Amino acid sequence: MIHNDLLLRTLRGEETERTPVWMMRQAGRYLPEYMVLRGKYGFFERCQTPELACQITLQPVDIIGVDAAILFSDILVVPQAMGLEVQLIESKGPFLPDPIKTLNDLKRVRVPDVDETLGYVFDAIKMIKQELNGRVPLIGFAGSPWTLLCYMVQGKGSKTFDEAKAFCYTQPELAHQLLQMITDTTIVYLTAQVKAGADTIQLFDSWGGLLGPDDFETFSLQYMRQIITALKDIVPTILFAKGAWHSLDAMAATGAQGLGIDWCIRPEMARQFAGKNITLQGNFDPAKLLSPIPVIQKEVKAMLDAFGPGRHIANLGHGILPNVPVDHARAFVDSVKNYRHTK
Amino acid sequence: MIHNDLLLRTLRGEETERTPVWMMRQAGRYLPEYMVLRGKYGFFERCQTPELACQITLQPVDIIGVDAAILFSDILVVPQAMGLEVQLIESKGPFLPDPIKTLNDLKRVRVPDVDETLGYVFDAIKMIKQELNGRVPLIGFAGSPWTLLCYMVQGKGSKTFDEAKAFCYTQPELAHQLLQMITDTTIVYLTAQVKAGADTIQLFDSWGGLLGPDDFETFSLQYMRQIITALKDIVPTILFAKGAWHSLDAMAATGAQGLGIDWCIRPEMARQFAGKNITLQGNFDPAKLLSPIPVIQKEVKAMLDAFGPGRHIANLGHGILPNVPVDHARAFVDSVKNYRHTK
Repeated sequence: MIHNDLLLRTLRGEETERTPVWMMRQAGRYLPEYMVLRGKYGFFERCQTPELACQITLQPVDIIGVDAAILFSDILVVPQAMGLEVQLIESKGPFLPDPIKTLNDLKRVRVPDVDETLGYVFDAIKMIKQELNGRVPLIGFAGSPWTLLCYMVQGKGSKTFDEAKAFCYTQPELAHQLLQMITDTTIVYLTAQVKAGADTIQLFDSWGGLLGPDDFETFSLQYMRQIITALKDIVPTILFAKGAWHSLDAMAATGAQGLGIDWCIRPEMARQFAGKNITLQGNFDPAKLLSPIPVIQKEVKAMLDAFGPGRHIANLGHGILPNVPVDHARAFVDSVKNYRHTK
Repeated sequence: MIHNDLLLRTLRGEETERTPVWMMRQAGRYLPEYMVLRGKYGFFERCQTPELACQITLQPVDIIGVDAAILFSDILVVPQAMGLEVQLIESKGPFLPDPIKTLNDLKRVRVPDVDETLGYVFDAIKMIKQELNGRVPLIGFAGSPWTLLCYMVQGKGSKTFDEAKAFCYTQPELAHQLLQMITDTTIVYLTAQVKAGADTIQLFDSWGGLLGPDDFETFSLQYMRQIITALKDIVPTILFAKGAWHSLDAMAATGAQGLGIDWCIRPEMARQFAGKNITLQGNFDPAKLLSPIPVIQKEVKAMLDAFGPGRHIANLGHGILPNVPVDHARAFVDSVKNYRHTK
């Protein structure tokens, strides 16, 4: 039994007393309590130690009062489990010293036994569920196959991920082999997250927006569709492909219950593209949380007015920035909680 | 008299025998001939020495055979002329050691005498026009006020330009003062480019796509509109706000003759948003120039099919990448030149 199940009911399209709210990267650097643990433990140590992942996951529920917890982890635990070395250099981002460039490199990659390689995630989920004790739902997640390929090929973050794109354009067969391996791994991984207790799953396609509409279908959406299809009978899913507004209709047709949208699209237009039978999640400009609190309050109201009642989960259009003051994050969440749609 | 005036006729909406083609950053690092000069002279030395700027501007006309030359310069010469120190650290990008954060900082910024501070640009344009000798038109350019503010406030490149955005959201009056000063400078600067011989002007809003639709109007488009309005009776203008697909209709209404579009929108949809009475420019994925030449040829054909005849200038959806082989760039240009629309 989940006490505050606003998020789940909104995903199912049920009427709710108010709009639910959470924030991408809500367990993160803007929280001083997180920074204390970041100072003591390495990044993957925090991910791989269920007690730490649990503690971090709970922080924004306790401190900010969000309507959902999201597992503290990283999308790059999957490439790691698949056999690639992944380093996370704090403040510099991910670094994969041996990226995939050739057929020979691909031989180093495997579809792993997820219990063996990612068991710590499922342990964390079980512990979090116990600690949450039904207060709010727990969101599990994974990176999309395309977004993971970006890192696995480019070897690090990039504005354009041109090496990853060139890999797909020059060696499409290799690219599709790799994407399918990531897809197969992700399906097993997310199914196990649900078995461990995740109440909903979000798929993050952070770099889908770097592809043109046709390439998005070819290298990203067709694999996300496989994942959504595999999960849709066991859990509600949310698909977030940042910047891929051009394919909201195709994403809505996957069977996902929710679609994330960024702040660079009007809510009315997103609704028009996505259709009526899906929940939209977003789309506050993360940089706007740096504004004075009265501006945040005014802008939250404008966002909720624009989305209208029902089928909306309030969120940012991307992860919360590390330099957002905690009381600004709280003002965002409180403004949503205090808002009532006029009937 | 311009011998090959395909670009200008296309901007005016006239019928042409084929689609004109050029590439953003066509005078750049992918060209070995450019790299030779880059090895010998500093970045601003290349911009500020008319002979060098002229030589670099002509390179892609001679080597690749594009249908237009674009002035070799940088958008950051304007902030420099306005009184800010701008360093360009090769391979790291721009760095402004004393960015604008407060009212006091704003006092260091002035609307300059452009002949005094940017005379070298006009000298370069005159020299280029002489060297071009009417072969193809010359495109002059400037950065949009918003994009320049991004660098002037953030002090360097950024994925999110969150400090620039926070400056606008927390100190909107200062932001508007600065944007107006940049606008006033840009109008005089571009008018002088036209007087010196530029045949058309492109305004680059590289970071317009980081703003939501309302903020795009407030902090970017309203200033670009002033610039287009000031220029539209003396020269055809092209407006390129990367990622700002949501405002193509509003941009088309400015009176610009051309709109740049990136590769993350279908040509049919861009046309639907922008309306029929404007020329669209774009929108090949720059990373796709890393594909094998037959793929480039096939994709160029698909792009030209999608845009249809007339009112289209073939280009990339963003600047050419430094690692593109020269023969791939040439294959792109040749594919456009060899294509004929079926009547």
